Parts: sequence; C-alpha cells; structure tokens
Amino acid sequence: MVKKIALLVIGDEILNGRTADKNIHSLANTMDANGYALGEVRIIADDADTIISNVRDLSERFAYVFTSGGIGGTHDDITFACVAQAFGRPVVQNQHAYDILNAYYRSKNMEWTTTRLNMTYMPEDCGLLNNAVSLAPGAIVDNVFVCAGIPRIFDTMVDDALTHMDGGVPIYKDSIFLNGVGEGTIGDTIAEIANAYPAVDIGSYPHFTEDGFSTEITVRSRDKNALENCFAKIKDYVLQFI
Amino acid sequence: MVKKIALLVIGDEILNGRTADKNIHSLANTMDANGYALGEVRIIADDADTIISNVRDLSERFAYVFTSGGIGGTHDDITFACVAQAFGRPVVQNQHAYDILNAYYRSKNMEWTTTRLNMTYMPEDCGLLNNAVSLAPGAIVDNVFVCAGIPRIFDTMVDDALTHMDGGVPIYKDSIFLNGVGEGTIGDTIAEIANAYPAVDIGSYPHFTEDGFSTEITVRSRDKNALENCFAKIKDYVLQFI
Repeated sequence: MVKKIALLVIGDEILNGRTADKNIHSLANTMDANGYALGEVRIIADDADTIISNVRDLSERFAYVFTSGGIGGTHDDITFACVAQAFGRPVVQNQHAYDILNAYYRSKNMEWTTTRLNMTYMPEDCGLLNNAVSLAPGAIVDNVFVCAGIPRIFDTMVDDALTHMDGGVPIYKDSIFLNGVGEGTIGDTIAEIANAYPAVDIGSYPHFTEDGFSTEITVRSRDKNALENCFAKIKDYVLQFI
Repeated sequence: MVKKIALLVIGDEILNGRTADKNIHSLANTMDANGYALGEVRIIADDADTIISNVRDLSERFAYVFTSGGIGGTHDDITFACVAQAFGRPVVQNQHAYDILNAYYRSKNMEWTTTRLNMTYMPEDCGLLNNAVSLAPGAIVDNVFVCAGIPRIFDTMVDDALTHMDGGVPIYKDSIFLNGVGEGTIGDTIAEIANAYPAVDIGSYPHFTEDGFSTEITVRSRDKNALENCFAKIKDYVLQFI
C-alpha cells in the first residue's frame, strides 16, 4: 500500500498573488519518483489557528506531512510555534540549531539579533532538517517535516526528509501524445479500456493550440503487468488516428 | 469586509507531478486586483467522495468557490456530477450547453460521441460560464464557479465569473526591495512597526542568491492612510541600510 503525503503551504504571499509557488510541483515530482503519493495540498494564510488545525488534520490523515514557509525569524514567521502547539509541545531553544548558526555568525562577525535568535526556537524534542543553502534548519515533529518556503532551501530539506521516510513503492507509468486528436474522438473507447483495467489509472489530458485539440493519454500503476497490458490495448486502438 | 474566496484544484495530474498548476497564481492575482481575498486553496485527487466533501466544506466557509479541472467529457471528468451531488441536485442535459456545442459540431461535421455529450450533462438549474476558447461552458451552482483546468480556458471562465460576483473592496499596497540586507538585520524593528500598525499586513520575504540574503518588505491594507503612514515609517528606517 503506497504511503500518502500531504503538503501544507503556509503563506499570505501565495494567496495574494505576490509569489507563484514552486514547491508544490517540486514535491509532487520528488514524492512520485520515490514511491510516495502526494494525496492533498492546501495553501493557507499566516494565521495561527488555521495553521494549527490544518497541521493536526493532515497529520492524522496522512503518513507524512510537509509544511512550506514561515520558519524565518521575522514577525510573520509563526510556523514552528504553530506546529509545536498542534502537538502540545512547548517551543524551546534548540541547542543544535543555535550551534550551527552561532558558528556561522561568528565567522561572519554578525550579531545575534532577536530575529536571528527566533530561528533557534523550535518545537521541543524535534529532529532537524538539514538546510544546505543557508544553514538555519527545518524541524521534524512527529510525522511532520517543517520546511522553509524558499524553493532552493525547501528542496534541500525535502532531500533530507527522504532519509527519514520509509515505505516507498515504485510506480510504473507511460504515456502517448496524440497530436491533432481530440478527447471527443477517442474518449468512448478509452473509457471502456479504463473499466477493464481497474488497477491502472488512465488519464486523458486535452491540449488546446491554434491547430485545435490534441490529447495525451497517461497510464500509471503499481502493477507492472497490468500497466503493460493496458497500455498495449490503448496503443492498438489510438494508433489508427495518427 | 472583504469577501473571501476558495479555490479547489481537482486533478491527479497536479498531485503526481505530471502538470505544474498555473491556475492558482492566476486566480490569486485576479482576485487581488478585483478586491477579493483568496483565503484557501486545496488540491485534491479525482475522487468523488473527496470532491463532494471539499465542495460542501468550502462552499459553507467562503463567499465564492472556484473549482478547476475535471469538466471534459472523458471517464476521469467527474466534477459536474460531484458538484451536483454536493448540492443535492441531479445532473441533467443542459439545453443551452447542447445548443452551443451542437452548432459548433455541425459547422465542423463532427459527430456527437458519448464523450462530447457528457460535456452537456450539468447540475440541474446551473448558470453557465462562458468558455471563450473552446466553447464547452463551465457551471455556476450556488456560490461555486465550476471551471475548466486548462489555464487559457480557466482564465476566460474566471473573467466571466467576475461579472456574477459583487462586493470587491480595493486593497492598497506597496513594497521595497533591500538588496544585500538580510531579514536578520532589520527584522527586530520591522516587528515593532508591525505591532504599531495592526491594520497593515507587513510581509518580510527573504531572497537568497550568490551574494547572500536580500529582503523584500511588502505592505498591504484596505486602509489607505494607515498604509501610507506605516510605509513611510518603514522607509525612514530601512533607507539607512542601502
């Protein structure tokens, strides 16, 4: 049984259009490539009650949860505190995180401002997620990976999170692009094939260009034999149209 | 009071990484420009129970809900049926939708396949959303706008949906980019200013490049005076660093 993952994107800047999220697509691909299924994504505002209730809800329903955003040290960064509260833990200074940043600031002759110190206050007894870009770590709290929102940093934390996950199940997939063939032409027969192969997820995706409609048919399954048989059937049928 | 909007993105292809969503960022910008606040986004799989429960939940909690995806006529397009069920309505053939497509198919000598007919089966008594690209309309059911997933078509349906919405409240905003200045340097004072101006949402967004950290400070408010006073204060403070 494939393990299901949820992503909670925390950030007013995504909701008000300032920033186009990149982490959803990145995590979707990484989970798929490692045999996990991204089951749900939510984008929510920087609001404590909203964050806490969503962390609890997703943590109960999914094997692992990723959060993205709100772990810098400024006034609008409240994710560590909210995740701690969701699990009934206090926020305490994390010695390991302090040591990592302290070595860096000393080497650069930078001072410990309150904003910088805030980044070391993390949920009690959390694990740390390595930040290969700018050092300030993410947190592991129960089945939740608390990651930064900046895409380059998010990606390095996801890489580290993978080393703490287990149970990936490979998925097999294939696809065929039918240039100039609309869904309306082939959809009836594709529906019959989909009914005959319940172990295979068949996707039908229309593309619209100046030349009219084209269709991409995708097949995905954790059963390799079923996938191959199903895809052979689809190819037999659609090749007459190209 | 600004009206809050939710977006429900329906599509396995977004969750498994095949497709990078573009509709979230587009809707976020369009709602912001028209005085509405996108309050939450969810991306869910093509699963009937999941779609129905999310439509009900979001429809109760938000002024308007947009859905994206799953309204073509193929076997994996189940959004019309699910939205109908969420509101306890049957799915029936929509005469207006039929007439629109029938005129097109006749002009092109195309047949009515089952897949094409499926696109005319819509929630009973729904309104139609104009599709300026490929004609097959979206649906308006109660406070839910049921839109296509293809970005070009989604955008035209959102444009039409705006003509059915009311109550937009203009938002005022400004921002300043501090090249080479990290959040750690300015965050303490920005937090004090944020406390002094509760009517203004101040965002602090780090950027990380080869040259180190920079920061963008954004201000947003529906109170124009508060915004101008707050932003003047921020500029007074941060200009010393550049």
